[in-house]
Amino acid sequence: MEHKTHITVRYYETDQMGVVHHSNYIRYFETAREEMMTHIGIPYTYTESLGIIMPVHAVHCDYIHPARYGQVLTVVTTVKEMPRSRITFHYQVFSDSEVLLATGYVTLAFVDASRGVPVRAPRFLTEVLEKYVNLKKTNKQENV
Amino acid sequence: MEHKTHITVRYYETDQMGVVHHSNYIRYFETAREEMMTHIGIPYTYTESLGIIMPVHAVHCDYIHPARYGQVLTVVTTVKEMPRSRITFHYQVFSDSEVLLATGYVTLAFVDASRGVPVRAPRFLTEVLEKYVNLKKTNKQENV
Amino acid sequence: MEHKTHITVRYYETDQMGVVHHSNYIRYFETAREEMMTHIGIPYTYTESLGIIMPVHAVHCDYIHPARYGQVLTVVTTVKEMPRSRITFHYQVFSDSEVLLATGYVTLAFVDASRGVPVRAPRFLTEVLEKYVNLKKTNKQENV
Amino acid sequence: MEHKTHITVRYYETDQMGVVHHSNYIRYFETAREEMMTHIGIPYTYTESLGIIMPVHAVHCDYIHPARYGQVLTVVTTVKEMPRSRITFHYQVFSDSEVLLATGYVTLAFVDASRGVPVRAPRFLTEVLEKYVNLKKTNKQENV
Repeated sequence: MEHKTHITVRYYETDQMGVVHHSNYIRYFETAREEMMTHIGIPYTYTESLGIIMPVHAVHCDYIHPARYGQVLTVVTTVKEMPRSRITFHYQVFSDSEVLLATGYVTLAFVDASRGVPVRAPRFLTEVLEKYVNLKKTNKQENV
Repeated sequence: MEHKTHITVRYYETDQMGVVHHSNYIRYFETAREEMMTHIGIPYTYTESLGIIMPVHAVHCDYIHPARYGQVLTVVTTVKEMPRSRITFHYQVFSDSEVLLATGYVTLAFVDASRGVPVRAPRFLTEVLEKYVNLKKTNKQENV
Repeated sequence: MEHKTHITVRYYETDQMGVVHHSNYIRYFETAREEMMTHIGIPYTYTESLGIIMPVHAVHCDYIHPARYGQVLTVVTTVKEMPRSRITFHYQVFSDSEVLLATGYVTLAFVDASRGVPVRAPRFLTEVLEKYVNLKKTNKQENV
Repeated sequence: MEHKTHITVRYYETDQMGVVHHSNYIRYFETAREEMMTHIGIPYTYTESLGIIMPVHAVHCDYIHPARYGQVLTVVTTVKEMPRSRITFHYQVFSDSEVLLATGYVTLAFVDASRGVPVRAPRFLTEVLEKYVNLKKTNKQENV
């Protein structure tokens, strides 16, 4: 599944090179998956209320062109595989003139907060994601 | 009592004006009081381990001259009054060439984390602060 | 004049007290005035393109109740006086259940970037603000 | 060559999971290479004063164990290859009890700030790095 998030660059996110500081893309990635999860009905507040936290396991970002103050960026977030012990979000960041500025991915684990141990992706998440995947398959068939 | 903390300006703290973004002074203030509390033997980790958290009640900062990347700032932190329900830290930020860049203050409350209610300054804190105040008085007398 | 900005709390803005770190309110204030300035047709990118930068002169924030992850805050920004050598923005931060969480203000100067000297509020700003003030007066008369 | 930097975790770097927010490791990496460059006599302020900026080309971080408030982390920074059009810094982050918390790398380009075009690694940098590499070789021979 795929989700688009619009993020306005803030002044405090720029650095003295006159562009967005590279560390902020990692925060944009977080914002984009927060919005995606909220969009599909599973905000992090819900997941955490059930005692499951999602610590980050790996981040990667390739920077192509700088983002600048005042731009409204579009972050396209994609989940390509059904999560098992981990979930990976893939990202593309576009400028307001649709230039690809950066790509990246973030992998998160699922942890039982009370016991502090890794667990598998909770069913309420996989069920929703499956629905989106099925929906997509159906749409594809409809297009035939 | 008074404490000096040295803080090196980081690249990610600058903005496109070419100076330290103003919001970071509030973080410098926090760093400075963290170091002061650790120095007098009461790090926040200790206070929090006893179930007392210290939410911020008010912050103020006046900006005089900008701080720049690469500078090693000196933050002078002063506690002028014995804390009761709140404690106030006063700050002066100096550049490496001893120019006064900013002044400010931060007031924090004491809260019992388990009950979520405000409490008075814990005795282990006031006792240590009293010692510093007494020490200062003694030093003054010695100077006579 | 008055402007409302909605800001969604991000995970990276929380701290281990489980609430929004106090320094982020200073950034929310910036976001709120950025949106206000863009709304009235004078985004900072425009002001800076004319060689005028607006360094912050003073910030103040009083914290009443904590903001929490996932909340959509409303920041009400008010300009009460016509700017001369400085402009002051007053802020009220409300939770999504309309509880007042914080109040504050930020004062900014106007500086000619090329010469590095303070200047008076540029006419293109005061003219627009006057229009809003007049509009407000007219509205009030209409209400009579 | 290899350099060790000590970084104290700040309260504002924690999140509501009770650990350091993952985005801050990218900032720790920056701090670590700033300190390394300053240590070998080529602070970024010097590089930028010669009109060369170093935009980040790629970042990667693998998270193993969380860092917590109050810890003094050790970041080991290593440059393994002589830079040509880009330079890569490799990182290992250790807790104060010498547990490996995270590993990663950051690749930066060299850009002529006035013309906005990529350039090769400046000679003043490669010459210093060669000295360190030679020094290391000499030390190895001495050990024979």
